[in-house]
Amino acid sequence: MREEARPETEYTPVVETRYFTFGNEDDPFELRCGKSLPEVTVAYETWGDPANKDRAILVLHALTGDAHAAGYHSEDIARARAEGREPKPGWWDPMIGPGRPFDTDKYYVICANVLGGCKGSTGPSSINPATGQPWGSAFPFISIKDMVNAQVKLIDHLGIDKLFCVAGGSMGGMQALRWAVDHPQRVQSAIPIATTARHSAQNIAFYEVGRHAIISDPAFLGGDYYGTEGPRRGLAMARMMAHITYMSEKSLHEKFARRIQDPIRAEAPARTETEKADNNASIAAREASRRGVALPQFQVNSYLHHQGSTFVDRFDANSYLVVTRALDYFDLGADFDEDLASAFAETNAEFLVISFSSDWHYPPRDSKSLVNAMRANDVDVTYSDITADWGHDSFLVKEVINGKLGFLVRSFLDNLDKELTDAEES
Amino acid sequence: MREEARPETEYTPVVETRYFTFGNEDDPFELRCGKSLPEVTVAYETWGDPANKDRAILVLHALTGDAHAAGYHSEDIARARAEGREPKPGWWDPMIGPGRPFDTDKYYVICANVLGGCKGSTGPSSINPATGQPWGSAFPFISIKDMVNAQVKLIDHLGIDKLFCVAGGSMGGMQALRWAVDHPQRVQSAIPIATTARHSAQNIAFYEVGRHAIISDPAFLGGDYYGTEGPRRGLAMARMMAHITYMSEKSLHEKFARRIQDPIRAEAPARTETEKADNNASIAAREASRRGVALPQFQVNSYLHHQGSTFVDRFDANSYLVVTRALDYFDLGADFDEDLASAFAETNAEFLVISFSSDWHYPPRDSKSLVNAMRANDVDVTYSDITADWGHDSFLVKEVINGKLGFLVRSFLDNLDKELTDAEES
Repeated sequence: MREEARPETEYTPVVETRYFTFGNEDDPFELRCGKSLPEVTVAYETWGDPANKDRAILVLHALTGDAHAAGYHSEDIARARAEGREPKPGWWDPMIGPGRPFDTDKYYVICANVLGGCKGSTGPSSINPATGQPWGSAFPFISIKDMVNAQVKLIDHLGIDKLFCVAGGSMGGMQALRWAVDHPQRVQSAIPIATTARHSAQNIAFYEVGRHAIISDPAFLGGDYYGTEGPRRGLAMARMMAHITYMSEKSLHEKFARRIQDPIRAEAPARTETEKADNNASIAAREASRRGVALPQFQVNSYLHHQGSTFVDRFDANSYLVVTRALDYFDLGADFDEDLASAFAETNAEFLVISFSSDWHYPPRDSKSLVNAMRANDVDVTYSDITADWGHDSFLVKEVINGKLGFLVRSFLDNLDKELTDAEES
Repeated sequence: MREEARPETEYTPVVETRYFTFGNEDDPFELRCGKSLPEVTVAYETWGDPANKDRAILVLHALTGDAHAAGYHSEDIARARAEGREPKPGWWDPMIGPGRPFDTDKYYVICANVLGGCKGSTGPSSINPATGQPWGSAFPFISIKDMVNAQVKLIDHLGIDKLFCVAGGSMGGMQALRWAVDHPQRVQSAIPIATTARHSAQNIAFYEVGRHAIISDPAFLGGDYYGTEGPRRGLAMARMMAHITYMSEKSLHEKFARRIQDPIRAEAPARTETEKADNNASIAAREASRRGVALPQFQVNSYLHHQGSTFVDRFDANSYLVVTRALDYFDLGADFDEDLASAFAETNAEFLVISFSSDWHYPPRDSKSLVNAMRANDVDVTYSDITADWGHDSFLVKEVINGKLGFLVRSFLDNLDKELTDAEES
């Protein structure tokens, strides 16, 4: 296994993205929307020993995540050396590794980029075999169920009969729920974190406005913008707005406390240090100087603009449309006459449900309604609302992972591992 | 008085907007930012008998409001007749009139469009006397203090020494606070509703993203877009996003409940009836049909798009930048060494502070901190957090006005009126 090798670098483990392709004209991949994809590629990474197949953990990523959940890419290590920076670990690195909550000494950990994404799995920016061109506007509607069905193909390919655990935050939690509900015989346990059974009207409203920003950007070209600049402004806007909903008021406040430059002047906070490096700030500054007043910039603007502009460089606008629609249309109770409880009637999984006190994107009440639905079916569920100030994104914050989140996940898995081992031995 | 006349229509009272202009090259209007305006026009309307000057109430409007707080414009009555619709009353009509909370049989009510606005008062779309062209990007930074100072000129012009009451919701509440703090000898009472002493980092973040949408719209042309189409897309985006923050999750949910068209199909709600009338929906529909799937539209999208597109027709983008900056930079404690309490040390006004339980834009805790600051100075303050499900905009909702809000305002004013009358007679 590549990721088991020890490269000539102080960074370990090095992991590489692998690709599994399935389907063809005669045996296409059927989608929930009624359409199908002639061919699907799933990009994935693994950590730990594949010999531990009976202790396989499928980690599921959120809206803007990818298969690179932990470790380092050798290309990035080289690039980092050249650029004199630290290489970037995967998005959930503190959770995955030897001795970490998803302990790679005991468990075989897998993470795959979602169907419809833009990080190696088939999505709108992939080549449509029928045309030899990117799918673009012709890419079909994708649901969370379709993402999970593509993961099922990968799990089959890896020779895994039953997953020891499916775990993820936000959209990753929705996938974990779908796994447990749609494939009860193949899931031992599930850890849905900071997630919901379905979007609130407010969640939908924010994403609809974000999609509107993309679709109404003239550079969107109806979705067939590949080879052109693409709807960069619209996508940045969508990201900036959505990012606000992922942070708590407290974390925003602590990050961007108001500092007053000159109360007599304009009741305004001080200029941010990062402003010069901030294109948008300079736009506003030029505008301000035209207005004849050195208008102070709010730090939060530079920060959000940075979030938006860097996002545009790493994410495809069509994938943002496809994946946010999958989020908005996800409704776990919809297949069960709107009765969420009956969704869990068939599942055999043990659940660890986790929410965060300051999450207003998917507030704790959303997790509680999931827990109530599970308990109505005597499903074995442990629930914890973790007090954390980072809002929805708390599940990605190192302090939270090295604190209560890591502890809960580790104990839950170790306990389940012991139960299974005892059962196997007896 | 024009508004006392009885026109040949069943609609009364008819009111007309009047204009007061002051300042000249030799005596310009000084602004807090250090710049000045050579000439300022204030658009205003009045209701009730000017003979009741000693019982004058200044009503203060919010971000997108104007001087037309109550009654009808004869032009709109004629237009409504032609279009076969009901004419539109002012934005706070149920609050102002004979027997209404702001009782025009007893009180002389005034409302003025804010400085920097686009509804008749001097703003970026006004003609700059120095150039004969619209101010556009040359319009200076305006603060809430400047808006109030312009109102002081109007009140002087109307021969009013001391206002019986200053009242307003949201930004109107900020102006009411400024009046009471900056002009203690001229304010008998103040009713700040659904407001705050300063914006939270989250408030600022949402408005910064909205301003970014406008400024980064190529049609913005650096702010000098008059005579062209202007940044319609950017302004609509800003409005759509901001509007979400003015509504509660509950009101959004009740307005746009998710209905499932075909669970097997796409976990998706039914098409909205208003979709055909909705340009954005049709954009998305065209895009969806290109994707080969009849993608259902969320009602909330049609609604928000309608909010955005109609707003663009009635509001100027530069005014949106100027007025939202006045909101973000407003900080009542900033002039008092960040000590909000000492801001109220000099005020002689009696306060009625009102918040709404479901307001997450300026949550009740913001009003409570205002009340605490007032009480620290033994200021006479009555506080009520009204249970209402309409979020921040509750103060504009007829059910609320005809309920608790109207009752509280009426009792507060009647009681104050009685106190004053007794004092005057004794």
